[in-house]
Amino acid sequence: MIRISLMLNEMQVSTKGLISVFTGNGKGKTTAALGLVFRALGHGKRVCFIQFIKGKWETGETKLSGKFQDLLDFHTMGRGFTKNSSDPEKDRQQARTAWDFAVKAITGMKYDLIVLDELTYLIHYNMVEEEKILSVFLKKPADLHLVITGRYASSRLMENADLVTEMKAIKHPYTSGVQAQKGFEY
Amino acid sequence: MIRISLMLNEMQVSTKGLISVFTGNGKGKTTAALGLVFRALGHGKRVCFIQFIKGKWETGETKLSGKFQDLLDFHTMGRGFTKNSSDPEKDRQQARTAWDFAVKAITGMKYDLIVLDELTYLIHYNMVEEEKILSVFLKKPADLHLVITGRYASSRLMENADLVTEMKAIKHPYTSGVQAQKGFEY
Repeated sequence: MIRISLMLNEMQVSTKGLISVFTGNGKGKTTAALGLVFRALGHGKRVCFIQFIKGKWETGETKLSGKFQDLLDFHTMGRGFTKNSSDPEKDRQQARTAWDFAVKAITGMKYDLIVLDELTYLIHYNMVEEEKILSVFLKKPADLHLVITGRYASSRLMENADLVTEMKAIKHPYTSGVQAQKGFEY
Repeated sequence: MIRISLMLNEMQVSTKGLISVFTGNGKGKTTAALGLVFRALGHGKRVCFIQFIKGKWETGETKLSGKFQDLLDFHTMGRGFTKNSSDPEKDRQQARTAWDFAVKAITGMKYDLIVLDELTYLIHYNMVEEEKILSVFLKKPADLHLVITGRYASSRLMENADLVTEMKAIKHPYTSGVQAQKGFEY
């Protein structure tokens, strides 16, 4: 009886896709997501990487993703909007289009892992309603893993996640005058 | 004159290899290092990944590393020692052998990026003298990037690093009874 319960338990956990959040002001959020992507690709999993803020996925990743064409879909959405945007309405429109695209990916049963890179900013800057986003997470296929990155993760987003790590900057090279390094940080 | 200083400055920073530390009790330390590895591989950089605690580099990574044989060297050292080891002297011996191996990699001019995965434990459990490790870091080739992961990074190690991120567990799936997921966490 114990054996059977254990087996059932294993089955349950093995079909559970986690919602993970990497937030905080430190380095390593998108990079950790990237590590998960390549680990998943190594297992032959199908991965979708959606970048909500333009310009973070750089040549290193692009070149690599070519090696995994069958498994990896990569999409850059958004315009790199900020709170000081020159055209907030256009930004909002683009953010919504990006989110609609993500909804299709999340509900489409095509992927094992979806990274929603910098999604937190859509909530933080009121580009897309938090309620809308969370309701889609609730509808996700049970075995789909979602990884959300970005600063300012809201408390409700974290409540709805299985795993939350705060990447906290203890020391940052920019403060000591060292610039971004090709092949390393970007 | 300003232009020239800027150029010199750019040259200096472009040859500076960073020492980065990912520490803390949260998920994402080794994963972020892995993200940096694959980003670097995408740029054609030569990478060495040294795992000081056995058993963290799993099938996903192993399968992938086969795709990058010319660029990536992967080495598992150590025995997964803990503070409750049954044979501390043997653990210490193995840790020193692992560190000697790392020293050769660091000083050997063969790599652009070296990951010292879980190196912090060697210092934390007094397996290898901190002073010895830091003196090797000081001798590293100027353009070599070092990434050190693991809990309990010592304050002296962090002082000698260019970048330190603390991965802080805000919420962890194990606490809610969810087990490790194949193709995702390992």
